[in-house]
Amino acid sequence: MKYGFSDRVKYLKSSAVRDILKIINQGNIISFAGGLPEEKLFPVEAVDQAFHKAITTNKKALQYGETEGVPELRALLSERMIQKGLHRSPDDILITSGSQQAIDLFSRVMFNAGDVILTENPTYLAALQVFESYETNVVAVESDDDGMVLADLEEKIIKHKPKCIYVVPTYSNPTGKVWSLERRKKLLELANQYHIVIFEDDPYGELKFDEQEAQPSIASLDEDGLVLYTSTFSKTVVPAVRIGWIVGPHQIIRIMAQAKQASDLHTNSISQHALVHLLKEFDIDGHIQTIRKTYYERMLIMKRLLDSVDIEGLEYIVPKGGMFFWVKLPPHINTTTLLNEAVAAGVAFVPGAPFYVSDPEENTFRLNFTNSEPALIEEGMKRLVNVLESATVNV
Amino acid sequence: MKYGFSDRVKYLKSSAVRDILKIINQGNIISFAGGLPEEKLFPVEAVDQAFHKAITTNKKALQYGETEGVPELRALLSERMIQKGLHRSPDDILITSGSQQAIDLFSRVMFNAGDVILTENPTYLAALQVFESYETNVVAVESDDDGMVLADLEEKIIKHKPKCIYVVPTYSNPTGKVWSLERRKKLLELANQYHIVIFEDDPYGELKFDEQEAQPSIASLDEDGLVLYTSTFSKTVVPAVRIGWIVGPHQIIRIMAQAKQASDLHTNSISQHALVHLLKEFDIDGHIQTIRKTYYERMLIMKRLLDSVDIEGLEYIVPKGGMFFWVKLPPHINTTTLLNEAVAAGVAFVPGAPFYVSDPEENTFRLNFTNSEPALIEEGMKRLVNVLESATVNV
Repeated sequence: MKYGFSDRVKYLKSSAVRDILKIINQGNIISFAGGLPEEKLFPVEAVDQAFHKAITTNKKALQYGETEGVPELRALLSERMIQKGLHRSPDDILITSGSQQAIDLFSRVMFNAGDVILTENPTYLAALQVFESYETNVVAVESDDDGMVLADLEEKIIKHKPKCIYVVPTYSNPTGKVWSLERRKKLLELANQYHIVIFEDDPYGELKFDEQEAQPSIASLDEDGLVLYTSTFSKTVVPAVRIGWIVGPHQIIRIMAQAKQASDLHTNSISQHALVHLLKEFDIDGHIQTIRKTYYERMLIMKRLLDSVDIEGLEYIVPKGGMFFWVKLPPHINTTTLLNEAVAAGVAFVPGAPFYVSDPEENTFRLNFTNSEPALIEEGMKRLVNVLESATVNV
Repeated sequence: MKYGFSDRVKYLKSSAVRDILKIINQGNIISFAGGLPEEKLFPVEAVDQAFHKAITTNKKALQYGETEGVPELRALLSERMIQKGLHRSPDDILITSGSQQAIDLFSRVMFNAGDVILTENPTYLAALQVFESYETNVVAVESDDDGMVLADLEEKIIKHKPKCIYVVPTYSNPTGKVWSLERRKKLLELANQYHIVIFEDDPYGELKFDEQEAQPSIASLDEDGLVLYTSTFSKTVVPAVRIGWIVGPHQIIRIMAQAKQASDLHTNSISQHALVHLLKEFDIDGHIQTIRKTYYERMLIMKRLLDSVDIEGLEYIVPKGGMFFWVKLPPHINTTTLLNEAVAAGVAFVPGAPFYVSDPEENTFRLNFTNSEPALIEEGMKRLVNVLESATVNV
């Protein structure tokens, strides 16, 4: 039988990164390609205890639950966010199956085909996948080290009348950049002036290397109900728990909850109750400190080895947090081609091109420093440096 | 700020049943309204052990996982379905966040606005919610005790050229009906003749009261790649685990997996690994026997009390499995109005009207018999019988 699919299937793409990972995971390759947290840091004992309590304390916790999420978890998240300056009540929070679902549900209730979304360029690949699946028109705004370039942003707002500006302003995937406070404030001003919703995607905000240099979330600066803010436990507890949350104007959150009801009734409530126990009975902030310290050390090792590369025109941004280095090679190097040579040499990265909305810079790539132990970073970077140096000599 | 939503928001409705449940759960009311399994039967110790093993055996189980689902779980599900005559490989299975998500992802990849779906009438409310959110045109087919009426089905196929026929053929929600073998086969014949996909929603198939009378799934009779079949662990293990699966032609499953990747990356894998342990190390079939026996006893108690009602024109179907009685009152009784009186008397049901695609029969209601212990069924039904009898006398 021949099946007829919906038109939107045309816009569904498998993630280039996930496809690359499938190949890489098959061999004996040191991979800097994924975006995985370090498994050795998973708080297994605390997670085990938390699930044990969630399952055995109250049978109601195993029954069907509320679409909005377990009330105690929303209350705890509200408290944690208030501590960070983001003042929202539990009713303004929707628990989601990872922050990816927050992006999807938001898109479902906000966008018609042809609506314009402004984003950084490059930006988070799987957000682009979602936006494209709703047949929206994603337009890239120029960025520099401090965030979007304001003149270009305003020009594109006027030209395209966007419905939303999507940003990953803190230790972004893929570039590792942090927006300055000034740019955060100016973004809000422009959004307010032109009546545009901001979607602040913040999976990495907790992974800061220097508390002093950290910036407030854009949502915490918002006084006009402009910002939807999403984050996740994937990087601070474990990814498999698949719990994220989104917080913002109640009117939007309420409609997203209706969409979620149709979509999957509610998020896994065993995991939600386990997180309630974890937040109450485990020193999650101490645990996050350990993660930060470990990732910072690994970042420094990778930085030292990147600094040792003798290639004219190689540039990279030193991450102030998060999980990634973003590296730029001389313009004649195509990193998609280079990946084959790297894999042959036993090391992998992700080429930069798929992260671009438009005008991909084919000479860029992303390196993850969180999922390999120091000795593997040393060995993998040695292999990579060889590949890079011979590639630049060969041309 | 005034927010602009997508057009599809118009078609998003909150579930009438969930809204009723919120009110009912506030008082001291015996509720036959929900569709909840019995908490006292939850296999807490086995679930606790299974999660403990899933969390502590292998740190990889806590990392990001495959969109399609944990391979061992898909393999075990494939084996279980083959035992029931449904021959599909693990590659033809997608693990979902409950079977609700299977309906949503299927709709996402199959339906354009205006596409026609044929359904029974009444049918599963939350499937209608999903279909409507994709702006499809749902058309009701006449049914009798054995399933859809074939003459009406063929007439509507010819008239509406539907893309899909959605059915809940086994112990359906809300009517508790079972399709006969002949109707199952004829449905397949018509679907094959007119090239229509069948979506078989089977959350209740395991809850059969008489093994001898059980019917094979429509999917197990399908030789032409016509049927998508979905089921869930919500009724056999616990709802909070939010694990369902969908099985069918690989081409459709593969595209649904791409949609799932954009939607939520992958289903909670702690729960998936826990179910692998549960299926291997726990006598789930013995546990299902206990559930069947308990629900059968409760169904008989409710039946006895329904039989004691002295109202001319009261009709109901004796369920052969599942969780529900579907009751019809004399035509002049409106059960939505009656619910207020019932709640005042300390008992609740769900009015039938919201389950109808069109031409709602306002004199119908649904009773759940699985979530109340025998003494509560006795007491609740006494209250309900009083309400019913005085309502029919009053008019």
